[in-house]
Amino acid sequence: MQTEVRYYQEPRVNKPVMVCGLPGIGSVAWIAVNHLQKELKAELFAEVFSPMFSPKVWLTDDGLVKLMKGEFYFWKNNGSGTDLLLFSANEQPYSPEGQYELADAVLGVAQKFGVQRVITMGGMATEKFAEQPKIYVGGTDVGLVKELEEFGAVKLAGGAITGTNGLIFGLAKPRNIPAICLLAETPGYLSLDANAAKAALQLSSKLLNISLDLHALDKQAQENADAVQKAKDLSRGAFPHEGKRDDRDLSYVS
Amino acid sequence: MQTEVRYYQEPRVNKPVMVCGLPGIGSVAWIAVNHLQKELKAELFAEVFSPMFSPKVWLTDDGLVKLMKGEFYFWKNNGSGTDLLLFSANEQPYSPEGQYELADAVLGVAQKFGVQRVITMGGMATEKFAEQPKIYVGGTDVGLVKELEEFGAVKLAGGAITGTNGLIFGLAKPRNIPAICLLAETPGYLSLDANAAKAALQLSSKLLNISLDLHALDKQAQENADAVQKAKDLSRGAFPHEGKRDDRDLSYVS
Amino acid sequence: MQTEVRYYQEPRVNKPVMVCGLPGIGSVAWIAVNHLQKELKAELFAEVFSPMFSPKVWLTDDGLVKLMKGEFYFWKNNGSGTDLLLFSANEQPYSPEGQYELADAVLGVAQKFGVQRVITMGGMATEKFAEQPKIYVGGTDVGLVKELEEFGAVKLAGGAITGTNGLIFGLAKPRNIPAICLLAETPGYLSLDANAAKAALQLSSKLLNISLDLHALDKQAQENADAVQKAKDLSRGAFPHEGKRDDRDLSYVS
Amino acid sequence: MQTEVRYYQEPRVNKPVMVCGLPGIGSVAWIAVNHLQKELKAELFAEVFSPMFSPKVWLTDDGLVKLMKGEFYFWKNNGSGTDLLLFSANEQPYSPEGQYELADAVLGVAQKFGVQRVITMGGMATEKFAEQPKIYVGGTDVGLVKELEEFGAVKLAGGAITGTNGLIFGLAKPRNIPAICLLAETPGYLSLDANAAKAALQLSSKLLNISLDLHALDKQAQENADAVQKAKDLSRGAFPHEGKRDDRDLSYVS
Repeated sequence: MQTEVRYYQEPRVNKPVMVCGLPGIGSVAWIAVNHLQKELKAELFAEVFSPMFSPKVWLTDDGLVKLMKGEFYFWKNNGSGTDLLLFSANEQPYSPEGQYELADAVLGVAQKFGVQRVITMGGMATEKFAEQPKIYVGGTDVGLVKELEEFGAVKLAGGAITGTNGLIFGLAKPRNIPAICLLAETPGYLSLDANAAKAALQLSSKLLNISLDLHALDKQAQENADAVQKAKDLSRGAFPHEGKRDDRDLSYVS
Repeated sequence: MQTEVRYYQEPRVNKPVMVCGLPGIGSVAWIAVNHLQKELKAELFAEVFSPMFSPKVWLTDDGLVKLMKGEFYFWKNNGSGTDLLLFSANEQPYSPEGQYELADAVLGVAQKFGVQRVITMGGMATEKFAEQPKIYVGGTDVGLVKELEEFGAVKLAGGAITGTNGLIFGLAKPRNIPAICLLAETPGYLSLDANAAKAALQLSSKLLNISLDLHALDKQAQENADAVQKAKDLSRGAFPHEGKRDDRDLSYVS
Repeated sequence: MQTEVRYYQEPRVNKPVMVCGLPGIGSVAWIAVNHLQKELKAELFAEVFSPMFSPKVWLTDDGLVKLMKGEFYFWKNNGSGTDLLLFSANEQPYSPEGQYELADAVLGVAQKFGVQRVITMGGMATEKFAEQPKIYVGGTDVGLVKELEEFGAVKLAGGAITGTNGLIFGLAKPRNIPAICLLAETPGYLSLDANAAKAALQLSSKLLNISLDLHALDKQAQENADAVQKAKDLSRGAFPHEGKRDDRDLSYVS
Repeated sequence: MQTEVRYYQEPRVNKPVMVCGLPGIGSVAWIAVNHLQKELKAELFAEVFSPMFSPKVWLTDDGLVKLMKGEFYFWKNNGSGTDLLLFSANEQPYSPEGQYELADAVLGVAQKFGVQRVITMGGMATEKFAEQPKIYVGGTDVGLVKELEEFGAVKLAGGAITGTNGLIFGLAKPRNIPAICLLAETPGYLSLDANAAKAALQLSSKLLNISLDLHALDKQAQENADAVQKAKDLSRGAFPHEGKRDDRDLSYVS
């Protein structure tokens, strides 16, 4: 069995930007792309099946079977911004080769639709909770990084990004597709960090010139903040190094 | 070496249903399909060999070598019910990719013979012994699930099914083959649960409109029940949570 | 990189028998095939290279590099017996898929040269030292097993043979090449059991109708026997179960 | 995704020698080839991307993404010596099959450009620090080994070389490309042994008839020597076996 992209329709998109987010640290990228899909009512146009996913199936509340898979959505912009392709999946392939395989398949779709830019996202674990999470960025060229710094992002100078989100970003370069990776600051101990996802989307909306309603994320983000505050109140002094740690020591994991 | 399906004959079957059962929890599916094959005197028509099986061979009592493999049987119904294709194997491939590979090969055979429905089976470990095991079901569409609920099955609402039995079920969907998965309640501590296999076959026989003689399973099932009762008598109180556990907590493994 | 058989010459052999022996328990098969090659002065005609071998190279005493590989030799019989092809390798592939891959490549060579029979060998660990090791046999058909029983071999009734030697044996069946596996009794604690290899060759020479000088093995076999006797003298009573164990309990590993 | 060599230019080189050095023990080979590239100002002409590398990307100080990859450089000699192709990578593939795959891809490039000789390098851990590290050599033919012994190298008689550096060396033989492997003595406890790299390059420069400025390595080598001396002063007597150990016991790892 080979990795296969199965098309349900061929969307007519004009110089689209592709935004990718697989599950990873804090689920930042996955939350962000799922919010984008729901908020914009982006339409499913293709799915990718692969023996590189884990060997199991899920059942919906209706008893319907769902494979582990990746999903491609499109959104046609009627305003002044750009058309979008979105990619997400319910897990990252478990093997290293599988992560390369999926990243390569995603970029194959990007190339087929003449994608102008690929944006991958992820979380950067900083071990502290930030109300306004910083966004760290890297790119396939200096111009892209500069453009993002103008929007308030912090340049990733050195370090590594592991996993499929990083590979989609990196493999875009030999395919000559301009790509950026946005890593939102996340404490690392949150499994679903809506606050970090919101910060990543705020920057993305400026970059894409698309206005986004982020209220649905606000609610979950507030719950996160409350839970973190409560934990801090209970264990005052339990994180003695918090705030002192040099961000430069961090290895970036998406 | 590639996974290869080797045909010994090309059976002329009319809109058959394929019933699949690989070894798994309680060996439920494997016992059920083997009983079906013996009871109906279904004929071998193809075998699947694969480097995804474990690297060993078996010897029969006559000193004849047997590879690890999957076997396809057919049965022509002379009555009002449906023709059948059966699939079983002496093990599940040990690697995740191998499980996808085998499931994909099985569905390739299903498609070649115009299979109308695929039924995969499995056990659902509930940690208690039931004289009348419940049958939990999922499907590729709502109609199938409803049809099975009318026969007394319980809808699987949420959860995951792991392994090859689950993948045959799940991969049927992108191939547009209607498929259902029947999971028979099994305690989990029985390695050969004939009682659960019998329950799965009782439902299947209604669904397939085929009358099946299940007496051979009855005998083994009775032995299981006796052994369980004896163990309970000896260790009264040793399973304090039995019967209290919420089925919703279970993860489904086939 | 793919598994590749590289031919150095195309030997003209007449209905040859192929004898295969990879390293395994007691190195029985490997010693036997190497002895055969040296004694008969069989000529190298092909090698098989594969990424399935371990990632290292060896150096000879002259500083020359040697890859991990399999080697094919041929021997033209000028007497009344059969022509031979020999196969050996300096290791078994480390992965299950690799073992299937190599076994399949070896049988591809067998088929190319119209091999009439494949003989694979191995050791059967019985945890005791036998001066006259028994030879256990299995085959692809009942006639072959009977033929070997007439030469004094014991039928393998049940059990499993693991590894590449077993897979060459088993995969011969779907290719319709008659094949037998000879497992020589070996204690299991000897890493190079020349005595077991000798016993396997004695039976093979009868089967092949080829007379073989086995003196070179005699010397090493005697050294083994002496070492075992010495160990027994030193640790009398240390193997309390020896001789009592039922051979039927053994799993066969080659 | 397949392993892919991507060419940026097609250098016109005349009967070049290829020098290969991947990271390994003491980083000897990697330091040597990188020094060669910088010192000769060799030009990048191709890169190899592979799913066999680890699934991560690096970021430069400018925030630019870099894949794990191998790099090919060329250098046109305007003097009397030979043209060069250089190969290095930022890591060795993590899987055995991956190491074969990369070695095979490198030799494909060598063959495409009519490479006359391949030189692979490595470190040989001897557990002692040598001011003038010995160079151990093996080759694909006796003449090459003799030629190197005349330059003061010591013949590797027996032993194994593991990893990609060894496989490039070994796989050159069935491709009929003359190849040598130079292993520089290194203590094993240095992660970056510039002294050993320098020794390997000194021999290589004689062999290639190219004069090389090795001052940049001298500085780092001196720092290594100082650090080792300081450690010895501090822990006199802590290495009791040093100097007594028989080099013949060593297994060669590159």
